[in-house]
Amino acid sequence: MDDLIAALPEGRVLTDPDVTESYARDRTFLPPGRPLGVVLAQSRDDVVATMRWAADHRVPVVPRGAGTGLAGGATAIDGCVILSLSRMTAIRELSPRDEIAVVEPGVITADMDRAAREHGLMYAPDPSSFEISTIGGNLATNAGGLRCVKYGVTRDSTLGLEVVLAGGRVLRTGRRTMKGVTGYDLTGLFVGSEGTLGVITAATLRLRRAPRSIATIAAEFTSLRDAAEAVAAIIAAGCQPSLLELMDRTTLKSIDEWKNIGLEPSTRAMLIAQSEGSPDEMAALCGAASFVATASTPEEADELVGLRRLAYPAKERLGQCLTEDVCVPRSRLPEMITSIEEAAARHDVMISTVAHAGDGNVHPVFIFERGLAEPPPAVWAAADEVFRAALDLGGTLTGEHGVGVLKQRWLGLETGPLVTELNHGIKQVFDPLNILNPGKAI
Amino acid sequence: MDDLIAALPEGRVLTDPDVTESYARDRTFLPPGRPLGVVLAQSRDDVVATMRWAADHRVPVVPRGAGTGLAGGATAIDGCVILSLSRMTAIRELSPRDEIAVVEPGVITADMDRAAREHGLMYAPDPSSFEISTIGGNLATNAGGLRCVKYGVTRDSTLGLEVVLAGGRVLRTGRRTMKGVTGYDLTGLFVGSEGTLGVITAATLRLRRAPRSIATIAAEFTSLRDAAEAVAAIIAAGCQPSLLELMDRTTLKSIDEWKNIGLEPSTRAMLIAQSEGSPDEMAALCGAASFVATASTPEEADELVGLRRLAYPAKERLGQCLTEDVCVPRSRLPEMITSIEEAAARHDVMISTVAHAGDGNVHPVFIFERGLAEPPPAVWAAADEVFRAALDLGGTLTGEHGVGVLKQRWLGLETGPLVTELNHGIKQVFDPLNILNPGKAI
Repeated sequence: MDDLIAALPEGRVLTDPDVTESYARDRTFLPPGRPLGVVLAQSRDDVVATMRWAADHRVPVVPRGAGTGLAGGATAIDGCVILSLSRMTAIRELSPRDEIAVVEPGVITADMDRAAREHGLMYAPDPSSFEISTIGGNLATNAGGLRCVKYGVTRDSTLGLEVVLAGGRVLRTGRRTMKGVTGYDLTGLFVGSEGTLGVITAATLRLRRAPRSIATIAAEFTSLRDAAEAVAAIIAAGCQPSLLELMDRTTLKSIDEWKNIGLEPSTRAMLIAQSEGSPDEMAALCGAASFVATASTPEEADELVGLRRLAYPAKERLGQCLTEDVCVPRSRLPEMITSIEEAAARHDVMISTVAHAGDGNVHPVFIFERGLAEPPPAVWAAADEVFRAALDLGGTLTGEHGVGVLKQRWLGLETGPLVTELNHGIKQVFDPLNILNPGKAI
Repeated sequence: MDDLIAALPEGRVLTDPDVTESYARDRTFLPPGRPLGVVLAQSRDDVVATMRWAADHRVPVVPRGAGTGLAGGATAIDGCVILSLSRMTAIRELSPRDEIAVVEPGVITADMDRAAREHGLMYAPDPSSFEISTIGGNLATNAGGLRCVKYGVTRDSTLGLEVVLAGGRVLRTGRRTMKGVTGYDLTGLFVGSEGTLGVITAATLRLRRAPRSIATIAAEFTSLRDAAEAVAAIIAAGCQPSLLELMDRTTLKSIDEWKNIGLEPSTRAMLIAQSEGSPDEMAALCGAASFVATASTPEEADELVGLRRLAYPAKERLGQCLTEDVCVPRSRLPEMITSIEEAAARHDVMISTVAHAGDGNVHPVFIFERGLAEPPPAVWAAADEVFRAALDLGGTLTGEHGVGVLKQRWLGLETGPLVTELNHGIKQVFDPLNILNPGKAI
């Protein structure tokens, strides 16, 4: 480590194990390995120096944003150097006319959005962690969010990248233009590659016009199927929702026990929807709802969407949480939720489910006893059933969280040996020494 | 060729040079090589058999859709087999509820859209050739179109692929869901790879709700800069145009000479715009326009958009056309068009320009004398200046047509040696024998 410390400006490297330990994990339960140290990069040059040193010494590098990941993509491995990008926080450029921004990876997602809003624009991807997650972490995982149903995922807002490759060379991909087709889509390849192909040191992001007005409703249903039918009806009617979120009874109960929202005993699900259209139209499409609330002021809208944002903290009051992430074709949503309920019953596990319903992206949260170092076997058994059910329904193991280490066990069920072979072939092109976040993503 | 003929059902292989010649070129002037033969694939098995034979015999394969490309991506090379996918025309599935379709590569783009419209949906990408181009060709080039300004390019509507690799193995990439992040984005990598990484035999496409109503205006301007300002104003106001097309005076004049549209002597540019909002708002944003027409019926709207669709045939009446395709950040549109006019004047070449102005995607059409086998040196000199000007303005050599063979000369100016090295590394992973459309795209 001494020559790495010497190669970087003073104060960039941490080696005290008590300190480095706090950089060794993300929000999963996976036991991390022991890192040699942590580099707190402040510039692209710091990243270049780190990657050169790592290549020379064959030391694995685990890039890291804010550590809010839910799949172990940033979990340390033994003998690695952790490369933290969270101090690279410059918004290098923001062009309202071209609707683009050039930013460093440590910019907090919500800060990017706020900077854009000053110009009537927005940065659309909004993972639930958007107040603490970084753009770099979002790029590494191709993060989704609540607004994806209208605006797409992180990849859909990424035009170009500056990347430091495993040996320290600097690559520029993509463009500043809305369209472009020169050569292979290297930009799209890096997005979602979980730091296994290169270290992103800047991104050219696409911003979008912020909507002029947003209509918000919340609808309660006495059956999940009715709620799913309302989702289908809102989509089919062409409302173009920018948010379409479903919460199951377990989730609503955890919120009610905390905030006393007056949950009816018969309520089985709640749907929260936003669009640029008419709230009355969306309300009318929730035909089977037992109750529909329509926001008539921005404050009321914030209150309704706020219910959804309470879902995770409310669950965390009940115990430790394994937050999962499957995605199915939208029409299979009721079956997916039924499968989750069946797995919960069969294994006697508490599962509380929220869904980005418009996308078919379902987050079953497995809640278990505090104090355990990791989820008990019954949770993993239930999770295994949920993952297999998603695949059986034509879905995927992960809609927006990523594979990381957590999903490695199941990855082959979805992709098969040929995809694995090709992914590893691509990895070899970019990182022949296999020093960039080895063991993750593919 | 005999064992290829034997490996395929009867009638699949053409070898008569008089016949195969008509499959040897796309819509560029590039002189094609002489193919050994043409395979008219009717199934995935035909493609597998062809690719196995090609690998065994080290014969290059040039995949081909309808041959409407403008960059030479489907141009035959000496001693190749041309693999035509245009007879694989099945729409295997269309799910209105999941808003997806699974289709074969030979489906005509407009047919895909019409099939979707029967269910209130649409297939958004609409290259100008959409009535004759195929989905497979669109995927190979990541085709754009008029509606891209709102709905994105072909890649943005592609969820998954079935691909036959160079050695004949069948790969499935992607998914049927709206979101998914398992492993690298192989789907995005194949889209736009111009048949150099694999042969697409099926695609899972994302459909979208067709808009409920469309407002259409056409505005005339006495200066290009005023028209560009109107483009910026319509975008900045949040009109979310689904079409925003600019035509220069040379284009308008060619239409007027043909169809007598009553072009005023002072008119320098016309803007045609569509959105789901109010036509009056868009009209008001064309503040400096000398005249604005607003469609009040669908027929009038078709007439206004029809003016834009007349642009290419009108140019073809004047001579042979080299249709080019640069893309710049939207704010640089006036400078790009000025550069084109300067190049036209300097080299005494007629250039007639249309632009997908909302995307900054500019199509200068270089018109030259009939009977010439290829564009004269002055045209290439002017084109060279236009390409370099686009790059100087922070733009790209090709917004939607692709690199093919035509842009190989300039590719390095945009991407540099590191991108070239990585692209060829990826190519090597998928096609180690370099038999898939060698010499194209990268």
